[in-house]
Amino acid sequence: MAGTVVTRIERTPLATVDRLAGFGVATVHEAQGRTGLMQSFMRPIWPGARIAGTAVTVSVPPADNWMIHVAVEQCLEGDILVVAPTSPCDAGYFGELLATSLIGRGVRGLVIEAGCRDVRELHEIGFPVWSRAVSAQGTVKETLGDVNLPLICAGALVHPGDAIVADDDGVVVVERARAAEVAAAAAAREEKEAANRARFQRGELGLDVYAMRDGLKAKGLRYV
Amino acid sequence: MAGTVVTRIERTPLATVDRLAGFGVATVHEAQGRTGLMQSFMRPIWPGARIAGTAVTVSVPPADNWMIHVAVEQCLEGDILVVAPTSPCDAGYFGELLATSLIGRGVRGLVIEAGCRDVRELHEIGFPVWSRAVSAQGTVKETLGDVNLPLICAGALVHPGDAIVADDDGVVVVERARAAEVAAAAAAREEKEAANRARFQRGELGLDVYAMRDGLKAKGLRYV
Amino acid sequence: MAGTVVTRIERTPLATVDRLAGFGVATVHEAQGRTGLMQSFMRPIWPGARIAGTAVTVSVPPADNWMIHVAVEQCLEGDILVVAPTSPCDAGYFGELLATSLIGRGVRGLVIEAGCRDVRELHEIGFPVWSRAVSAQGTVKETLGDVNLPLICAGALVHPGDAIVADDDGVVVVERARAAEVAAAAAAREEKEAANRARFQRGELGLDVYAMRDGLKAKGLRYV
Amino acid sequence: MAGTVVTRIERTPLATVDRLAGFGVATVHEAQGRTGLMQSFMRPIWPGARIAGTAVTVSVPPADNWMIHVAVEQCLEGDILVVAPTSPCDAGYFGELLATSLIGRGVRGLVIEAGCRDVRELHEIGFPVWSRAVSAQGTVKETLGDVNLPLICAGALVHPGDAIVADDDGVVVVERARAAEVAAAAAAREEKEAANRARFQRGELGLDVYAMRDGLKAKGLRYV
Amino acid sequence: MAGTVVTRIERTPLATVDRLAGFGVATVHEAQGRTGLMQSFMRPIWPGARIAGTAVTVSVPPADNWMIHVAVEQCLEGDILVVAPTSPCDAGYFGELLATSLIGRGVRGLVIEAGCRDVRELHEIGFPVWSRAVSAQGTVKETLGDVNLPLICAGALVHPGDAIVADDDGVVVVERARAAEVAAAAAAREEKEAANRARFQRGELGLDVYAMRDGLKAKGLRYV
Amino acid sequence: MAGTVVTRIERTPLATVDRLAGFGVATVHEAQGRTGLMQSFMRPIWPGARIAGTAVTVSVPPADNWMIHVAVEQCLEGDILVVAPTSPCDAGYFGELLATSLIGRGVRGLVIEAGCRDVRELHEIGFPVWSRAVSAQGTVKETLGDVNLPLICAGALVHPGDAIVADDDGVVVVERARAAEVAAAAAAREEKEAANRARFQRGELGLDVYAMRDGLKAKGLRYV
Repeated sequence: MAGTVVTRIERTPLATVDRLAGFGVATVHEAQGRTGLMQSFMRPIWPGARIAGTAVTVSVPPADNWMIHVAVEQCLEGDILVVAPTSPCDAGYFGELLATSLIGRGVRGLVIEAGCRDVRELHEIGFPVWSRAVSAQGTVKETLGDVNLPLICAGALVHPGDAIVADDDGVVVVERARAAEVAAAAAAREEKEAANRARFQRGELGLDVYAMRDGLKAKGLRYV
Repeated sequence: MAGTVVTRIERTPLATVDRLAGFGVATVHEAQGRTGLMQSFMRPIWPGARIAGTAVTVSVPPADNWMIHVAVEQCLEGDILVVAPTSPCDAGYFGELLATSLIGRGVRGLVIEAGCRDVRELHEIGFPVWSRAVSAQGTVKETLGDVNLPLICAGALVHPGDAIVADDDGVVVVERARAAEVAAAAAAREEKEAANRARFQRGELGLDVYAMRDGLKAKGLRYV
Repeated sequence: MAGTVVTRIERTPLATVDRLAGFGVATVHEAQGRTGLMQSFMRPIWPGARIAGTAVTVSVPPADNWMIHVAVEQCLEGDILVVAPTSPCDAGYFGELLATSLIGRGVRGLVIEAGCRDVRELHEIGFPVWSRAVSAQGTVKETLGDVNLPLICAGALVHPGDAIVADDDGVVVVERARAAEVAAAAAAREEKEAANRARFQRGELGLDVYAMRDGLKAKGLRYV
Repeated sequence: MAGTVVTRIERTPLATVDRLAGFGVATVHEAQGRTGLMQSFMRPIWPGARIAGTAVTVSVPPADNWMIHVAVEQCLEGDILVVAPTSPCDAGYFGELLATSLIGRGVRGLVIEAGCRDVRELHEIGFPVWSRAVSAQGTVKETLGDVNLPLICAGALVHPGDAIVADDDGVVVVERARAAEVAAAAAAREEKEAANRARFQRGELGLDVYAMRDGLKAKGLRYV
Repeated sequence: MAGTVVTRIERTPLATVDRLAGFGVATVHEAQGRTGLMQSFMRPIWPGARIAGTAVTVSVPPADNWMIHVAVEQCLEGDILVVAPTSPCDAGYFGELLATSLIGRGVRGLVIEAGCRDVRELHEIGFPVWSRAVSAQGTVKETLGDVNLPLICAGALVHPGDAIVADDDGVVVVERARAAEVAAAAAAREEKEAANRARFQRGELGLDVYAMRDGLKAKGLRYV
Repeated sequence: MAGTVVTRIERTPLATVDRLAGFGVATVHEAQGRTGLMQSFMRPIWPGARIAGTAVTVSVPPADNWMIHVAVEQCLEGDILVVAPTSPCDAGYFGELLATSLIGRGVRGLVIEAGCRDVRELHEIGFPVWSRAVSAQGTVKETLGDVNLPLICAGALVHPGDAIVADDDGVVVVERARAAEVAAAAAAREEKEAANRARFQRGELGLDVYAMRDGLKAKGLRYV
């Protein structure tokens, strides 16, 4: 029943996506009401990258990366490939050649609830990947999946065109329709945090910055 | 029943703690008879840090970081915050703002049997964390825990004021009353290891350095 | 029944091993028909190393590293120590002193389905280790194992003298008798990949480079 | 932002649900094109139950079961409670008293991506539970979640009113709109399997029942 | 430094222990303020047992069960053996012969943060075990541990003589000094639960039984 | 390169296999020097079965069970199917129809380092399975593997025709050439254990039955 490629999707505008890239996963996650976070086993294969982009979704059979090749053709500047297997699999679906191809199309990174390989080469060419595993185990090209249908990746629902933000803290999905609003909320949050940071740097305590003392006392906190 | 903050604790003297910092976790663990080691899932969020400090202990409800704010006020120069949830939880209890606050008080790091977030920022400001997970998942501030009561963190019993040593190998707890003696034992061990290192560098074998050949033969080792 | 040390083993020629070192684990694994890969929980303790060498195998009792000392004496220039416990154990069998000893004998690295410690020191002296865990937990020297008998390490069968290749993607074993042929196949594969890489860099798609469109259509792929 | 209870949901008709209950999870999963299966860590707390029902969905904060009490009031005859925490948690959200309450309302079971307790009592009163963990750890009642909003439970998207089928093989979700069609497909599949079963019982081989010999030969299978 | 056997310990009175046995782990855990629960990976090797007894503690080296034999001699009627390895190990430390020996001394069960074997035989002779793993892997008798010193087992601190309660929900430790008070609290809790159970059986809701409606409304719960 | 079916294999004589079946996994494992044990994640899908048989080995691609159908034709009375995926996969490769087919051929059970399904039906028809997972997830029939080549299953090397023993403690492999000798050793061990059991039943201690007191004293055990 699989085997569908949706060729036209509505993407979150890149200007919005680029605003989101500035905030980081924790801030964006908070800004949208603590939703959309992928499970914490999704880890970057090398540290330090922080990207945002628009999701091109790919469902793949276990240990079969055929559909990733199909998906590459659907990618545009600013996209992030989001790949989930139809049943759990940690094989190495993705390596340096696919990354080379994606870089040429302006793709910003890969999020895959499975394995990737060529970690050293991917680091050298600067292509960031968030994956569940690193594995040299190869895959076959025998069975179809789907491109640009909604899917669940690492516990988060992703629609094609949604905004994806990824950094050392993990990966978060922002619904396309809410992306501008979330970016604004993130900016507001960051502004507030900057003010708080200054207070913390001056030595104030969270107990006072957040006015927690009364609440704690009311719950029965006692100092002995 | 939770909700106690012990405001006065006896701390391992900083001079002793600073001696311990020079040795590393494996040496200290050996020097105190292979006790006090936290479970190996406690990993540094960035490599290379080696710290020692005095424990301020915090028990926290699952996904509730209120008590960490309470604990900050109890911290002094040279402390390490040791946080354990009352039931298993990998949420991101701790981030860059709390670290900023702790740095201002001279706190040297965080050991948490749960998750932390803002990994990139924590690396940039040089605040080391040993945690069970990295997660952007936020926490609430609804329920009390305790500060500076003894607790079990990652399988190790920690009393407030105990010495904590942490590096790329993990985290070890040294009882306050034994800390000076352990530091001395660690120094002795290191001296002995330096002598052995020189012998290994000259090409001698462990079989001879540690005089193992007879023991092995007695157990029946045979070369074929 | 354990307690055997085989002192003479046939090793894969170093010239062949050194050819393999140039290719990396994923390529070698593909070149030998996707066999010999260790399980993906075998991770480097620091990133970036890529080595190949000849296996000296060591079976060790749980939390007992006596036989590693026995094995050191059997090591020659170009070897890699491959250690597997007789029942699962993550204790820290190996540290900087053993590494110092091995470096003096020209050993290129350690592959251990258990724990190692002194991670920072091992990184400083440049000795690479692939392990299942990092743990400061020490081991005893009470019970015999075997050196240079075939063993299963992380799900892969290793004969003494086999070639081992390890990098950021994991660890792969190449049978001694097939090593030259595998190196040739890896070279051929890499040449082909270089040609493909050039095509990808020019913007060609995998769909065309690998001529997949007809196969996908035959399976029923539909664009909507 | 949480705190919504949807009081009117459209449920899969019970007649359809009851048809599904006869088939078991594996058959239903196949009949709907291998979609909707929850992750395999969802296990029954006692063996042998096979149920189907209509989903009442509950999102709960970590270690906080307040919303389960809210959800009970929304349950009708034939429902199954489907509970997912907003961040991973294995605490014991559910025990015998809640089950007693649910049995009184005709609820058929619980599916929870977290922990439950009172396993012995739940077995004695015959209330089936599929959970990620068994844990005596209690929960608090401090923070809101949602009832009858769509949620992701153990990797599967569940809408309120969807059909849920659960047995010793796990848990599968059937979209309400497709439930009748899936039940028909499951019946057709079972009929076909009954015919095949008879052939297998007579000693025929799958190679012949499914006419695989040519396909295998074409792929290159060789008998030696 | 290990190798101590404490021969005289103060035990929780058996009358108190027997009262605790009637309540089950979840109730006892609640009754003592949600403390003392072992981690949820401690599972019974066969279902249905519910026991309480007094702890005889044994620390064992990895894969070495010598000290269990030492501990048997220290056991009295009503005891439960509580065994924890000094570093993580899942080998099969315990089987039917040791159980036979313990049964003869009136020991009620085993709690071991490691593996056991002879599961079928243990079930047949009715000796209950809570363990972290089932494994046929044997152990050696080479290295000392301690008997009747305090230890941490599966994340819980156990003093010799403490009361242990174990059932299908897991294992909980009750401090000797608090055991009578905890038994009383458990009885009170159970009485209250019996009253609530009757209300639930009559169809009342937890929302009303626990008077939660106002609190939920105050937090902002909305029905739509 | 896969795609080989070896049609003639030498099997361990059934008389020997049947002797082994009487002993259980722990005894056989000990009797052959603690080798050949599969990893402890291999668990029976229902309790109580104890079987022995001759291995027919099957390597399968991830989530592809085609070769199991090929293997059925190679099975004879007394065989046990031993299945390992070429890369880790927990999909449900096996269900009731395949079991029906195998029962007709006198096959005694299945050992699979992956998932199986139809657990309830398999229990009803009495076909025992040891697996790594239970999963309703289906598989495809697209890619070849091998039948009756040596393989590694759950960490143990299995040659076709080897004896397999499985019970509630796990699975152990006995090399064909050693099977008679192992059966004899197991019988001797059991006889000795029967004598020891009688002594334990009379109240003797392991300390005396195994004459451990001197050894313990020599190691420094002290009673306080």
